[in-house]
Amino acid sequence: MTQSLLSQAIADYAQQTETFLASRLAGLAAPHRLVSAMRHGSLNGGKRLRPLLVRQSAALFGVAPEKSLATGAALELVHCYSLVHDDLPDMDNDEMRRGKPTVWKAFDPALAILAGDALLTEAFALLSDPQTHPDPAIRAELVAALSLGARQMVEGQVLDIEGETAALDEEAIFKMQALKTGALIRTGAEMGAILGQADHKQRAELLRYGVSAGLAFQIADDILDVTASSAQLGKTAGKDAAQNKSTIVALRGIDAAREILNGAVAQGLQALEQFGTEADMLRALIRHFATREN
Amino acid sequence: MTQSLLSQAIADYAQQTETFLASRLAGLAAPHRLVSAMRHGSLNGGKRLRPLLVRQSAALFGVAPEKSLATGAALELVHCYSLVHDDLPDMDNDEMRRGKPTVWKAFDPALAILAGDALLTEAFALLSDPQTHPDPAIRAELVAALSLGARQMVEGQVLDIEGETAALDEEAIFKMQALKTGALIRTGAEMGAILGQADHKQRAELLRYGVSAGLAFQIADDILDVTASSAQLGKTAGKDAAQNKSTIVALRGIDAAREILNGAVAQGLQALEQFGTEADMLRALIRHFATREN
Repeated sequence: MTQSLLSQAIADYAQQTETFLASRLAGLAAPHRLVSAMRHGSLNGGKRLRPLLVRQSAALFGVAPEKSLATGAALELVHCYSLVHDDLPDMDNDEMRRGKPTVWKAFDPALAILAGDALLTEAFALLSDPQTHPDPAIRAELVAALSLGARQMVEGQVLDIEGETAALDEEAIFKMQALKTGALIRTGAEMGAILGQADHKQRAELLRYGVSAGLAFQIADDILDVTASSAQLGKTAGKDAAQNKSTIVALRGIDAAREILNGAVAQGLQALEQFGTEADMLRALIRHFATREN
Repeated sequence: MTQSLLSQAIADYAQQTETFLASRLAGLAAPHRLVSAMRHGSLNGGKRLRPLLVRQSAALFGVAPEKSLATGAALELVHCYSLVHDDLPDMDNDEMRRGKPTVWKAFDPALAILAGDALLTEAFALLSDPQTHPDPAIRAELVAALSLGARQMVEGQVLDIEGETAALDEEAIFKMQALKTGALIRTGAEMGAILGQADHKQRAELLRYGVSAGLAFQIADDILDVTASSAQLGKTAGKDAAQNKSTIVALRGIDAAREILNGAVAQGLQALEQFGTEADMLRALIRHFATREN
């Protein structure tokens, strides 16, 4: 798969996810300011890579794209809520995201806390909605997978904050990143396997792919934080060093980080070996995670 | 049912809920500080009235107490998360709750945000756990009911904050309170109906009871805020007036509020008319909501 075909597929599905989320939020009979803040925190032109992972994993088992859209959107809502809370003054104190004021800056911190809570809540409302999947057993399984991933993400955020005051060793950094960023990416692959009713072995391999994809994504992020400009990233570059974050790049340097990144890509590709050309998009995706420039 | 029998039943079930939650949190393989903050925010000797509502509603249909414990605990986790976030400096800025420092005061605001997020997430993890209920259709329905209640609670919180700067009229106050406090109480009755696989009419009546119980609970709370001491309440008294909160008591005075309270109790009792003595505890409970002194 060429890079431009992949970029097109990413952009197309991001648009579909954005449209789905916009329609879902438009249907909420909630106070105007709350819905505005929820929209601000979720309809932000994100790349929607996690929903794409759900879609492409489900597609391996013949699930039609529109059948995985709601599930991917629920996962994205969890990602969005975490950013809304992450940006708060008491957390990272970020004023800009994707070239726009963050939710607390555009509204106020109290509303940003509540809007984040509501986005997280809405993720589970969406998954438990019969329109998302007709089989309640699948809905319950999706809720279980997403709640586990969402909790692991929070665990990673706590370890990340602890890493600002105490230097983490390599093992602790890998653990923190596998939770903070990796958990939701792995959950994307897992939710696709659930939608596709994958067998035990297929599901295990997709999970392995998801773990590798999460690692590749995070290491690439850490490298970009050092090598890219703020304009390129759409967020403040050099933040990790400024905040004294424990990263593999800080600990081992860029060359070693690139080697680990290449290793993660190789492992992810290996996990897909049992699949044929139907997994080509997942293969292109993990390569893209490693080579992306923003 | 005598008042002392009810008090004993409340205390007993509160203890069972506390033990269940303690055991569930002890099983989390999460960073120590996160689990400590989650424990601090949830194992606080609360009265656990919402889990009791789940239990007593389910008991109408012959569901054994231990079969509704996990569901009630999930509902309580949502209540607990909302208090953890409510107390934050950017929200109510409360330093004490039940005679102990609030979570942000005992730890720090960032951890309180994350611990609240994790408690909310854990509620859905618990409901989607096959050990909570063997039937996935019931699990999915419980998730749908709880996510709706949790979102409505947030809507009420937003309206409540708006009521601090713009005077709400009576209708707006009732709406705000029905969402902020009423939604989770109504959800308790609803989850009991789901566990008991109540028929349509029974479920509708239990919902009606839950709405009345929520109203009674909130009006009693507003009256106590004016008439009780901080020591009696275990939290700061007179807060509503100090924060310029819109309440029925502030708008209509204490006597009118007491009348509305009595009307809510009468409506709640009427909704239970189709049930026999098996609903006596629910009857005692709504009377207790109206006459409690803390």
